[in-house]
Amino acid sequence: MSSTATPSAASGGARGGTAHVWSVDEHLDDILGAIRPLEPIELQLPDAQGCVLVEDVTVPVDLPPFDNSSMDGYAVRVADVAGASEEFPAVLTVIGDVAAGSGEPPVVGPGQAARIMTGAPLPPGAETVVPVEWTDGGRGEGAATEMRPAGHAPGDASGEVRVHRPAGPRAHVRARGSDVRAGDVALGEGAVIGPPQIGLLAAIGRATVRVRPRPRVVVLSTGSELVQPGEELAEGQIYDSNSFALTAAARDAGAIAYRVGAVTDDADELRATIEDQLIRADLLVTTGGVSVGAYDVVKEALSSVGDGNERADADKDRAEDGAEDGSTEKPGGGVEFRKLAMQPGKPQGFGSIGPEHTPLLALPGNPVSSYVSFELFVRPAIRALMGLKDVHRPRVRAELRADKALPSPAGKRQFLRGAYDAEKGTVTPVGGSGSHLIAALAQADALIVVPEDVTSLEPGTGTEVVLLG
Amino acid sequence: MSSTATPSAASGGARGGTAHVWSVDEHLDDILGAIRPLEPIELQLPDAQGCVLVEDVTVPVDLPPFDNSSMDGYAVRVADVAGASEEFPAVLTVIGDVAAGSGEPPVVGPGQAARIMTGAPLPPGAETVVPVEWTDGGRGEGAATEMRPAGHAPGDASGEVRVHRPAGPRAHVRARGSDVRAGDVALGEGAVIGPPQIGLLAAIGRATVRVRPRPRVVVLSTGSELVQPGEELAEGQIYDSNSFALTAAARDAGAIAYRVGAVTDDADELRATIEDQLIRADLLVTTGGVSVGAYDVVKEALSSVGDGNERADADKDRAEDGAEDGSTEKPGGGVEFRKLAMQPGKPQGFGSIGPEHTPLLALPGNPVSSYVSFELFVRPAIRALMGLKDVHRPRVRAELRADKALPSPAGKRQFLRGAYDAEKGTVTPVGGSGSHLIAALAQADALIVVPEDVTSLEPGTGTEVVLLG
Repeated sequence: MSSTATPSAASGGARGGTAHVWSVDEHLDDILGAIRPLEPIELQLPDAQGCVLVEDVTVPVDLPPFDNSSMDGYAVRVADVAGASEEFPAVLTVIGDVAAGSGEPPVVGPGQAARIMTGAPLPPGAETVVPVEWTDGGRGEGAATEMRPAGHAPGDASGEVRVHRPAGPRAHVRARGSDVRAGDVALGEGAVIGPPQIGLLAAIGRATVRVRPRPRVVVLSTGSELVQPGEELAEGQIYDSNSFALTAAARDAGAIAYRVGAVTDDADELRATIEDQLIRADLLVTTGGVSVGAYDVVKEALSSVGDGNERADADKDRAEDGAEDGSTEKPGGGVEFRKLAMQPGKPQGFGSIGPEHTPLLALPGNPVSSYVSFELFVRPAIRALMGLKDVHRPRVRAELRADKALPSPAGKRQFLRGAYDAEKGTVTPVGGSGSHLIAALAQADALIVVPEDVTSLEPGTGTEVVLLG
Repeated sequence: MSSTATPSAASGGARGGTAHVWSVDEHLDDILGAIRPLEPIELQLPDAQGCVLVEDVTVPVDLPPFDNSSMDGYAVRVADVAGASEEFPAVLTVIGDVAAGSGEPPVVGPGQAARIMTGAPLPPGAETVVPVEWTDGGRGEGAATEMRPAGHAPGDASGEVRVHRPAGPRAHVRARGSDVRAGDVALGEGAVIGPPQIGLLAAIGRATVRVRPRPRVVVLSTGSELVQPGEELAEGQIYDSNSFALTAAARDAGAIAYRVGAVTDDADELRATIEDQLIRADLLVTTGGVSVGAYDVVKEALSSVGDGNERADADKDRAEDGAEDGSTEKPGGGVEFRKLAMQPGKPQGFGSIGPEHTPLLALPGNPVSSYVSFELFVRPAIRALMGLKDVHRPRVRAELRADKALPSPAGKRQFLRGAYDAEKGTVTPVGGSGSHLIAALAQADALIVVPEDVTSLEPGTGTEVVLLG
């Protein structure tokens, strides 16, 4: 259940320097190019919910496995009920019950009827089923509306029944194999296992299924100023919100998410915490400490963690691969810190750490920046780990509703929080553009995308909107 | 965490008989009219994900709680950097660092600068912040791109810094309370707690929140013919799929779901199982045994469970309420079995059982019937228990794509399985109308609704579609 993230060409070489400003798409492409879907495992059906199938599941037995009745009624021979009417009913001898799941069914001979329940096998000799409502139910009182419970009226399984209508061959009979046939592909590789798929797999007898598991995502916030909710704030402190919001968002994206709240700005402590967490992580997400400050320890700590392991791995790879690329050192892993042409969310880190090259996304610390970054980069990464083809949030075009034009920095893709109105096809900004405005974020259901070359988005303009679901 | 379902007027009296055929809407209205949202409880933030808030959450402290820097840079006085340029920089004495979460900040006097990190409080005496990129970072080598880590270059927190650009008052300063102010309503009653809401609640220091919990839903399949997946099928047996599919669907709807697979068709055993399960159920869902057959034990067993308890409760209620309605007996609980003008899904049961009047929905046993019934009736019931306002799946109109007209029984609302194409606005039927076609159900993402008065739905016609998400 490990995954390997290897940086693409884009992350090494020319673009690797601090000088290059990455576009949103370049950063995303780099992440999705490096993330590999998790190795499949065999899971019990209920545990496979939401996962992606990695096998073609073939049907081992016909479904239904035998001809059976689709109605509660009487199993009879066609000739015996031909021409039957209420005035001139066919009178048949009831030879017993065929209940679903009961043992050996009786053989229906000429002039005979077996009372049969929905789902019960068509008994030998019988050719068709007449619903109980087409008979007197054996009670001699005109058309029946239902059968009496067998426990209360055992006599109804014997005696005579009057049939009021004819039935053609195999009426109200579900044929063996009419749903799926043995050898058919029930579900193909790549199918997402939702409730109906679980139903189908159970129906064909599958107790387990081979899928890509949910990724285990460790979310770790950093910052010496962070205090856990419920505790007292001292001067200069704020509450840790990112670890809560992003753990919830990871869960929402399909992950099994673990929250590691508020590591202080100490490189050694952070490094030790991350090394501890690696064992339960298919993906690591950190917040804070990625910018240009003197205490941005995520940058400091993660470069080291990555380098150390990656250097050893690179040596190993080189030894295994021979000298095909002996002139230059392999790019290896490690986390690279970048500036993105994006607002909010300019400083970002991406790479891999530890012996399993576990992918790591380092997000900025401002709550709105980290949340927007999560939506744009981490959510697709989680869904790529799951093996889903559709990794992105739905996007639509909507008309901007605003009192005045929205300014946007030149050369940066801006993501504003908005409220989307599906009926009107409009989007209205919520709150301002500040990356600390978490109250506005909680009112938004969409991100308004302002492209790099737009410096002023006029009201009434059509623009792209990311629906946050 | 209990709920009370009391039957509406519709379920008593004239419509209560077996003769009345209920419309889909009447049955749904009866269910939603009887279901009461669960009693709220105080939950830890992560456990409240997906739940509905039952309080107005007010903000206890301004957010941010203090003026702080939005950049890594230098906290200075405005006058000291007025007119600064690269050619004629303002040269200031660096008196120390202000890191986020560090203790008492230094006082910035005239001609002085404190190095400040994003999120750190604006120190006394300082009036504005100049980003590090507008300075030489104290290194005397032209414009800095970033600060060096404090651990590696402690000297950067002293010495001199050259500032290359002026900054107006409170530039790059986030004002105390600029996100939310103490006393504001952060989130109102009825808000659904998603990741950004969890972020906001954490940010204002809330560790717990008062919400309606996820309903505990027990899904119980019945049928002597049912075998658990993975086991061997004997003659006349089929695999239990409903308990798996509906447990998954209940989870998908937001419930905590428990699966109780395949109770045999024995009224006493069923009654005992249900009485056992009541303790952990806010809602019970059964499949099978609701039709007109002689072994439809759900009908038999549930009427008894309901009657016994309800009669006692009705007596108690009467005693408490006094004689305001003394002339007629209160309707009480119990499960009522009905015929619906619907295909699939004609036989249905609804009512309440046990001392807590736990609501129970008894669905038909065919896999497609039970799944369609779940979508139409159980999912809204679960979401009503959660206190959600929006209990239904989204519905759209789509144009039917089909080779030939789809026949539909007169007087019944038919739900066919379909594949919806959002871009084209079309829906294509998948598989046939048979209620046993679970393979087709697994390929569908929509239900095509054919109204009661339509007996033939022509290709190209616009029709209602339920999106299964």
